[in-house]
Amino acid sequence: MKEKFNNQPLRGMADRFPPDMREEYYIINKIRDISKNYVYEEYETPLLEPMEIYAAKSSAELITEQSFTFTSKGGDELILRPELTPSLARMISRKSQEMKKPIRWFSVPTCYRYERPQRGRARSFKQINFDILGEISLLEEIEIFNISVDIFTSFGAISDQFQIYYNNRRLIDAIFKFILKIPNNLYWKVYKALDKSDKMEDEEYQKYLMDTFNDNKLVKNILQLNEINDIENLPYDNIPNEFYNSQGYKEIKQLQKLLKETNLEEYCTFSAGVVRGLDYYTGTVYEVYDMGEENRRAIFGGGRYDDLLTLFSNEQISGIGFGMGLLSFKLFLRTYNLIPENVKELDYSNIIYVTTFNEKLAPLSIKLSQKLRNMGFECLIDYSCGKLGNQISKANELNCKAVVIIGPKEQEGNSVTIKNLLTNTQETPKLKNLNRKILEDILEK
Amino acid sequence: MKEKFNNQPLRGMADRFPPDMREEYYIINKIRDISKNYVYEEYETPLLEPMEIYAAKSSAELITEQSFTFTSKGGDELILRPELTPSLARMISRKSQEMKKPIRWFSVPTCYRYERPQRGRARSFKQINFDILGEISLLEEIEIFNISVDIFTSFGAISDQFQIYYNNRRLIDAIFKFILKIPNNLYWKVYKALDKSDKMEDEEYQKYLMDTFNDNKLVKNILQLNEINDIENLPYDNIPNEFYNSQGYKEIKQLQKLLKETNLEEYCTFSAGVVRGLDYYTGTVYEVYDMGEENRRAIFGGGRYDDLLTLFSNEQISGIGFGMGLLSFKLFLRTYNLIPENVKELDYSNIIYVTTFNEKLAPLSIKLSQKLRNMGFECLIDYSCGKLGNQISKANELNCKAVVIIGPKEQEGNSVTIKNLLTNTQETPKLKNLNRKILEDILEK
Repeated sequence: MKEKFNNQPLRGMADRFPPDMREEYYIINKIRDISKNYVYEEYETPLLEPMEIYAAKSSAELITEQSFTFTSKGGDELILRPELTPSLARMISRKSQEMKKPIRWFSVPTCYRYERPQRGRARSFKQINFDILGEISLLEEIEIFNISVDIFTSFGAISDQFQIYYNNRRLIDAIFKFILKIPNNLYWKVYKALDKSDKMEDEEYQKYLMDTFNDNKLVKNILQLNEINDIENLPYDNIPNEFYNSQGYKEIKQLQKLLKETNLEEYCTFSAGVVRGLDYYTGTVYEVYDMGEENRRAIFGGGRYDDLLTLFSNEQISGIGFGMGLLSFKLFLRTYNLIPENVKELDYSNIIYVTTFNEKLAPLSIKLSQKLRNMGFECLIDYSCGKLGNQISKANELNCKAVVIIGPKEQEGNSVTIKNLLTNTQETPKLKNLNRKILEDILEK
Repeated sequence: MKEKFNNQPLRGMADRFPPDMREEYYIINKIRDISKNYVYEEYETPLLEPMEIYAAKSSAELITEQSFTFTSKGGDELILRPELTPSLARMISRKSQEMKKPIRWFSVPTCYRYERPQRGRARSFKQINFDILGEISLLEEIEIFNISVDIFTSFGAISDQFQIYYNNRRLIDAIFKFILKIPNNLYWKVYKALDKSDKMEDEEYQKYLMDTFNDNKLVKNILQLNEINDIENLPYDNIPNEFYNSQGYKEIKQLQKLLKETNLEEYCTFSAGVVRGLDYYTGTVYEVYDMGEENRRAIFGGGRYDDLLTLFSNEQISGIGFGMGLLSFKLFLRTYNLIPENVKELDYSNIIYVTTFNEKLAPLSIKLSQKLRNMGFECLIDYSCGKLGNQISKANELNCKAVVIIGPKEQEGNSVTIKNLLTNTQETPKLKNLNRKILEDILEK
């Protein structure tokens, strides 16, 4: 006997059976509705990209260690997109001259990362992406925050369950420069360190910081940054005026004013420790957190990027956007019971169950179902040609709307028996008279 | 100045801008409706699979020459799925015991082939897949043919424009065995040869056949097979009775009877030359052709497979299905002008254009749009804070439904000006009174 292949998907990949798909559509369709309410247009980027466009602006770690990269038959270094933004920038750069600004775009890519599969992470995952590009106005920050909030509240989540922790890279730079006097060449290293704080235990994190910087004062400052939630009461003495005049400080203050004026304040908290792991952010950055005591964690994040197009052209377009992993969001929804139990089940309540009396009469049942489908009804044909009672039982088990029968009697009378399974009543109209109205009359009794 | 990256997608890959996506959704949504009418449940397989499960049953050429294959960091041979059926079989084998038969499944995968990009073919392409598994009945053939026909007719195509050319592998085998006396070990080679007939010019094809078989009689027979369209009048003398008693012959006759009885005959033509290039087909095979004189070509095809699960388990499940390349189908629709002109354009006619009077009042406009969206209206906010006349002109250009304004007067009166752009009338209700009904009254005047 021949050896059998393993029937499991590759590690970190998922087979998606119909119940999984129904749950996923329940979530994605709600978010797609939000994209329509905000007039974001859907686009798609290729799954395969030249590695270089990702290597240039995403984090180096993401590309070299955590991505699916390979060499094509033609000798090119390719990558299965680990996220979307560099591809978005590439597409925008191709047509930005002819597009009305701001550009509001939405996408639902599947992305790939070669990392250890764990709770909330897989090697293949769907993402929801929203981006608005082409104007530099904090009102766009408000729109992106508003969309992020709507995504949660549309499922019934409340502000006790999630918070947007926001910050600004220009503000952190101003703190580094004017307050902490960190040398310029260390900025990136400190960003990376801040970004890791969530992913390690306290002790492990402190050890990592000491190993990385070997500087007690700097490590203390980094640890302190993670605790700062009030821009008005920074825990520093003698803050110079240059700090208060910096663009970063002004942007944060202006953003806070707007959040208050647009009723979004309830959902948002300033946090000096939020920086995001991707290299291309230049202004506002944010991460949305699950606020549960037991399960506090970042669900997704986003931010503003000013220089992304410069990889491809001399045009400068600023944008802000986010990419939300669907798996991570689904975990959040499950934690708070925000997905109805029945979304995984196929709903048969609008389906007409078409029986076949025997092989000779089966074509009549098929022709009937052609007619019913043309009228807009969903039809499930039972090809068993088995006992009628069994076929009707099956229709009942599934909770179908109705059963239709063409047996010898119906054939003789050129008619069809239609049985309403809800009321358990039946009628036998002539086939030639059958139309939508007659059928609805029988089915909606 | 730093060198810029090329902003084009990789060869054979496509960037899909919003107009492309709208056209694609127009097509896919119609087909998804058909999947609902026939109660086919959607599933998704992973894009990455172990190469071996494709190598075992797809054509060897497809895997070694025409697929994206690579070695993972863990040393495994992986493939970007070039089609879907082996993955489908893998998934079915995991849960077939617990699933009700027949299984009706539907999927819209993106597949990858490493071939020369040309009209109707790209290296990355979406496919539409329908499969019904678990019963061996020609009534299932009828269902799959019916779905194939519905896909075309739902766009307005008629039988002069497309035809299902069908055949049966068991019938060809019976012709080989009982009539042409072709040795068993040549069957596959002849299949492959028949499958190539469409892809070459006549002269080139004849040369290829001679080079391959070096047998005048066999080459003549193969060429003749491509011409046979009438099972009742085969161009052979002394056909033995074994042929007429073969399962292949009986199945074709029964299928033809059913096609007639279910009004599908008009769309279907028997063709002894149709075999399909994939190795796993065992019974009915078919290809749908564009019938245009100038552009006769196969659009897609499918068939019955009996042994696919045996790669993974000892269970025997027969199924029939098809995979239709979306690009190829779109070319067909374009040829016959079956895609409405305007599907690529964004329809603004239900969108409310929200102006911003100035930076100070902008948050009031944002709060208003929150309110409107909660009522279910789509809102596009203009963050320019520019001249009101310009903002209204933009809304008019886009053909929006309405413009809303909160300026100093409205702020003072706690009201909002709503301008119906169709009737050019406006009203200024109090904000606190604003509800769906009041808004609809103004907008539907």
